[in-house]
Amino acid sequence: MASLLEKPLPVSVQNINPKVLKCEYAVRGEIVVLAQKLQEELLSKPGSHPFDEILYCNIGNPQSLGQQPITFFREVLALCDHPSLLDRNEIQGLFSEDAIKRASQILKQIPGKATGAYSHSQGIKGLRDAIADGIKARDGFPADPNDIFLTDGASPAVHMMMQLLISSEKDGILCPIPQYPLYSASIALHGGTLVPYYLDEASGWGLEISDLKKQLESARSKNISVRALVVINPGNPTGQVLTKENQEQIVEFCKQEGLVLLADEVYQENIYVPDKKFHSFKKISRTMGYGEKDISLVSFQSVSKGYYGECGKRGGYMEITGFSADVREQIYKVASVNLCSNISGQILASLVMNPPKVGDHVYESYCAERDGILSSLATRAKTLEAAFNSLENVTCNKAEGAMYLFPRIELPEKAIKAAEAANTAPDAFYCRQLLHATGIVVVPGSGFGQVPGTWHFRCTILPQEGKIPAVVSRLTDFHKAFMNEYRD
Amino acid sequence: MASLLEKPLPVSVQNINPKVLKCEYAVRGEIVVLAQKLQEELLSKPGSHPFDEILYCNIGNPQSLGQQPITFFREVLALCDHPSLLDRNEIQGLFSEDAIKRASQILKQIPGKATGAYSHSQGIKGLRDAIADGIKARDGFPADPNDIFLTDGASPAVHMMMQLLISSEKDGILCPIPQYPLYSASIALHGGTLVPYYLDEASGWGLEISDLKKQLESARSKNISVRALVVINPGNPTGQVLTKENQEQIVEFCKQEGLVLLADEVYQENIYVPDKKFHSFKKISRTMGYGEKDISLVSFQSVSKGYYGECGKRGGYMEITGFSADVREQIYKVASVNLCSNISGQILASLVMNPPKVGDHVYESYCAERDGILSSLATRAKTLEAAFNSLENVTCNKAEGAMYLFPRIELPEKAIKAAEAANTAPDAFYCRQLLHATGIVVVPGSGFGQVPGTWHFRCTILPQEGKIPAVVSRLTDFHKAFMNEYRD
Repeated sequence: MASLLEKPLPVSVQNINPKVLKCEYAVRGEIVVLAQKLQEELLSKPGSHPFDEILYCNIGNPQSLGQQPITFFREVLALCDHPSLLDRNEIQGLFSEDAIKRASQILKQIPGKATGAYSHSQGIKGLRDAIADGIKARDGFPADPNDIFLTDGASPAVHMMMQLLISSEKDGILCPIPQYPLYSASIALHGGTLVPYYLDEASGWGLEISDLKKQLESARSKNISVRALVVINPGNPTGQVLTKENQEQIVEFCKQEGLVLLADEVYQENIYVPDKKFHSFKKISRTMGYGEKDISLVSFQSVSKGYYGECGKRGGYMEITGFSADVREQIYKVASVNLCSNISGQILASLVMNPPKVGDHVYESYCAERDGILSSLATRAKTLEAAFNSLENVTCNKAEGAMYLFPRIELPEKAIKAAEAANTAPDAFYCRQLLHATGIVVVPGSGFGQVPGTWHFRCTILPQEGKIPAVVSRLTDFHKAFMNEYRD
Repeated sequence: MASLLEKPLPVSVQNINPKVLKCEYAVRGEIVVLAQKLQEELLSKPGSHPFDEILYCNIGNPQSLGQQPITFFREVLALCDHPSLLDRNEIQGLFSEDAIKRASQILKQIPGKATGAYSHSQGIKGLRDAIADGIKARDGFPADPNDIFLTDGASPAVHMMMQLLISSEKDGILCPIPQYPLYSASIALHGGTLVPYYLDEASGWGLEISDLKKQLESARSKNISVRALVVINPGNPTGQVLTKENQEQIVEFCKQEGLVLLADEVYQENIYVPDKKFHSFKKISRTMGYGEKDISLVSFQSVSKGYYGECGKRGGYMEITGFSADVREQIYKVASVNLCSNISGQILASLVMNPPKVGDHVYESYCAERDGILSSLATRAKTLEAAFNSLENVTCNKAEGAMYLFPRIELPEKAIKAAEAANTAPDAFYCRQLLHATGIVVVPGSGFGQVPGTWHFRCTILPQEGKIPAVVSRLTDFHKAFMNEYRD
């Protein structure tokens, strides 16, 4: 029986790892918890709020908002999940010929067709070969399957690199502001120092090398050893696509300053403007004549973004180049401690890097699905951008790529005072009110970082096209009412 | 162009996180790297070694050695991966009625049937409900779906708890010796101190509370704040199954000493002796009358073990009870940073905790598959155990559960000297020679920890039954030759 004198439980927020306490992740933070609560209330008491559904625009999660998966990819996954289907004649009408062929090829690369076995710690060799081929086709430069580490989405890959590079708060990582909060969270969890550099909103979230240099020197003057530079291209939450010239400057800067270039390239397929194109940092480096011995480069890719949007599959990889054999051994060891990433995610990563090609039977239908999604995303981005720009006191840069808009909102003094009284950041105050009035969930700019005194929020471009007019009108009505209430 | 003066690459083993350097993981260590090399040589030069295949007995990876997945589970996964199959009549003959029903049920619990969307950070609510039901059916005590955190296998769950509990080397975690090296690796990566307690080989790897107490006090006298006790039941690498009485003592000890009980229960379905039964630590605690306010308990479960052995799916969960709301919030936040675990792994975790029941059409065939695997594992364990015990200078405790034997080998002085000369641990020396002579991969006891001066290795019981005689004869021949060479 329990003793009469009750002891307190051994774990409290006072005695846990302070790095955990310090870590923040606004994309699934306070506002999302509130949204989940409102959703439950809508279910249990329909009509209890002035809207009938919660619209999650807080996170790049396309399929949660109705985007359909690419048929070919899912066919291959289903066949690999249940390989004995391949011995049955009935599948001929049920699955495309190409999917049957691809699944058979993949299974041949797995000893015993064992999709339920742990793989090599870096991922199945045949799948890494396919990914390396895909990188080569994309860049025009060779890629080595031994440089690929398959991971459960890009996040664990980012954590692995932070774990490797950060020993203490004396180790700094240059990160863009605004940034995707995975970076600040991972740096906090590993006990390092985030060294911020600011993207310039006025020039479409441009990256100025002079600012990078200034921030680097300022960190070094505080005895911070800066280890790496994070670049997110296309940008998150900011949506800009870097120019080739800018990328060359960044490569040169990292090379000169001895920084690892951590290139978040998960939105490489999400580009919505005709005058911009994705170039991987590896391609840029190789074009400049820099090879393995010149620059240490990590490229992160994920199956969660692009036109596929397979967030729930948790597939991704990092390609690491320019690391010595003994450091690579250490990365391999850390990967081994978690054994391997999930095989479905591995397969999917090989598919997105090696999709159907001209000549395949499914090529046409595959392209139709892909282009339908991408062109619809471009339309939605444009519509929402125009809507934001039409609001009083709001300006919004173009989403050239990625999945987000990051409008800036000039809040009236009265609203800032009201936020202060409510003990919350002014942009969080705005986002909470927006949620309560409309059911639309966005993330306050303070969760990504912003120039002090400016206020923003991040809104995905992911609601289905049919819903965009309603989103726009709800947003507009709310904003007008908000401004009328708080106008100075 | 690359500059003329070559700079060194910025990352070297001298400037990476020393915790990474310190971490070791023998299960995929040096011997496995050697085995992979030999395997490549066999492929490129058949006949280059005195065996024609590498037999990986280093890791609990059943399907890599030919174990077949449970059909029902794979049917459900395939249907969930490609939900539009459910609209097609052709699937009637191709999938069991129960699988179609279960897949439909699962998809109904996922908004929009979106198996490609990020889920709730703890996992899909409906699947957590199913797991909670399964825990209740197993234990006879209620389980709360809000206590379940679905993870990509058990390893990330263990890391999450270590990250929470360890702030510095002043925080200690009591771990069994021998132990599964995930624990030592995770403690090293998070910068904590492993406080060892020894399992008693002579009493079948018994756990003595008096030893626990002694080690706890010794650690405290060195100013180590001991935060948690790890118990692996059934044992890995040691294969013992704890008695109920022993479990009660452990619960009482943790309660009295204010330790979190970290219960690795991933082998809960793997028990091979009629006189032992698995009891979860939660069931034991609740039976003793201890509830949420009395003991902090984490139970780890995985889809990789049991009769299912779905290692490549990376599914698992932890059930946390006895933590305050604000600490749980911190755990939720850390889970959120990685968004969610992979949905196939989540689905599979719900299936293994809620398999077909009496009355289901597939029940009989499901039971046949399950029981076939489990009884074969029991047979293989017995055969291998007898084989080890018949070897000169080798003694081997019974594998009551889990997937391993951990024989002890008394090495001749001459072998120990030869190992010294080769700059390797004596048991690693033995394992390397075994690999070179037979192609059989086992892991030296030094990778798990052992009483100083004793030598062991871990060997899985997983080679298919048809291969066991060859394994036994190759092992026996090698051992005789080894002893003849090194006998004092």
